[in-house]
Amino acid sequence: MPEGITFQNNKALENRPTIFVTNDDGVEAKGLHSLIEAVKHLGEIIVVAPEDAQSGMSQAITVKYPLWIRKIKTDDNVTIYACNGTPADCVKIGISQVLKKQPDMVVAGINHGSNSATSVLYSGTMGAALEGCINEIPSIGFSFLNYEADANFQTPIENARKIASAILKESLPLGTCLNVNIPDVPPHAIKGIRICRQSMGFWHKEFEQRTDPRGRNYYWMTGEFLNAEPEANDTDEWALENNYVSVVPIQIDMTAYQTLPGLKKIDFESAYKFQQT
Amino acid sequence: MPEGITFQNNKALENRPTIFVTNDDGVEAKGLHSLIEAVKHLGEIIVVAPEDAQSGMSQAITVKYPLWIRKIKTDDNVTIYACNGTPADCVKIGISQVLKKQPDMVVAGINHGSNSATSVLYSGTMGAALEGCINEIPSIGFSFLNYEADANFQTPIENARKIASAILKESLPLGTCLNVNIPDVPPHAIKGIRICRQSMGFWHKEFEQRTDPRGRNYYWMTGEFLNAEPEANDTDEWALENNYVSVVPIQIDMTAYQTLPGLKKIDFESAYKFQQT
Repeated sequence: MPEGITFQNNKALENRPTIFVTNDDGVEAKGLHSLIEAVKHLGEIIVVAPEDAQSGMSQAITVKYPLWIRKIKTDDNVTIYACNGTPADCVKIGISQVLKKQPDMVVAGINHGSNSATSVLYSGTMGAALEGCINEIPSIGFSFLNYEADANFQTPIENARKIASAILKESLPLGTCLNVNIPDVPPHAIKGIRICRQSMGFWHKEFEQRTDPRGRNYYWMTGEFLNAEPEANDTDEWALENNYVSVVPIQIDMTAYQTLPGLKKIDFESAYKFQQT
Repeated sequence: MPEGITFQNNKALENRPTIFVTNDDGVEAKGLHSLIEAVKHLGEIIVVAPEDAQSGMSQAITVKYPLWIRKIKTDDNVTIYACNGTPADCVKIGISQVLKKQPDMVVAGINHGSNSATSVLYSGTMGAALEGCINEIPSIGFSFLNYEADANFQTPIENARKIASAILKESLPLGTCLNVNIPDVPPHAIKGIRICRQSMGFWHKEFEQRTDPRGRNYYWMTGEFLNAEPEANDTDEWALENNYVSVVPIQIDMTAYQTLPGLKKIDFESAYKFQQT
């Protein structure tokens, strides 16, 4: 890894590592159990996953009502709990109240559906990975470009296993976690694992309006993602369209450093007076 | 502003601008009405705010159930709606279904409580600002370092007015919004408005365990923030401790660019074989 990057102290290979698993589709989702299958040979597996689906929850945390944890089962080296909170809550309460120590890795997913490009901002899967990252644990969110509840997870399992194995060995720079997206193609059609940057884009046609039996309008969120840079070949969107597994390093420092010099030139007092005249 | 930065096309000063206002403490919060007071001289004000408190909601969006909008009142140039969704939902549905056009600015807040440092990741206030930013609108989240429902908002109102006026005039670089935090001191004690970077830090003692009447444990989220870099004098935490209003430019591109070269050297196939032996 390059000079100038401090790596997290990873003792995973000295002892049997503890792998913390969560997701945002809920404790019964096929994607969660696929991720457990992908990593269970790597160490002790502790799962704390949401009781029900928490898609689109970003890094939301629960402050309005209390959380509880329910043990579901222990099976070989895998112990599964459910929690009534968000994915980020599951990571917080799992580390603080279940494990009572730092795990060697946090993995989240495998999400039923893409979290590429700007979707990282809304993703509960990545909210969990970011929460692991804030706690200085190497953390990865995995998402599969197939929304079906009973999708075939063979391709994401194989690739999640490779990536989790590599990161357990190599660790990650402090303040950085990985956003991994996996194309919906058979394993032999995957061209490789590609390190990318987050593609820029946005959604349009985001709401479908309907009318309830009492004549009031209501709205379902829906929408289509528009890739704002379709020509770029270094983005996750490009990788996925070309059958690569996309790996984007995501950082918890959201400062737009390149804008600091320009912003420092703004005279807030004068602008205010200008508006008043 | 520096070369190489593309600014958003801001026609605000050519016509009477439309200012979109939301928050995460709900449509009845004093902080929301303080923000309306701060910006109402700048143009037409459209408010779509959550029906109830949405603290800690990050940039969560609602996909599990439908959204509705309720008009509360129109008063001079201020029209207020409530929505049953998150702050990010309010921005999406407000632009798409209420305004049906891009506003000239999105402002969120004034939050009852700090959203400095790594709290930006959990903040519903900043979730709304990021949503405005994704939609290429100059966007600002304002937070006040006082949690009380009936806090005196004179200091945040004066500073939000100055900053909103300046950004309406100067605009912001594409992909960047502002995270503004305001110390809880009287107006004359504010030393100035300071452009900063996001301080790094994390929470500890995050849960308080209690026992319900049936003997089961439950957990309230709480916790103390620890500033991981208390010596730095270019962070928002430093600014706030020294009675400056902190302004941090926040970007929607979360890629950790400096880690790309190191990550590209990882051999995912070999690491996987190593783990298998």
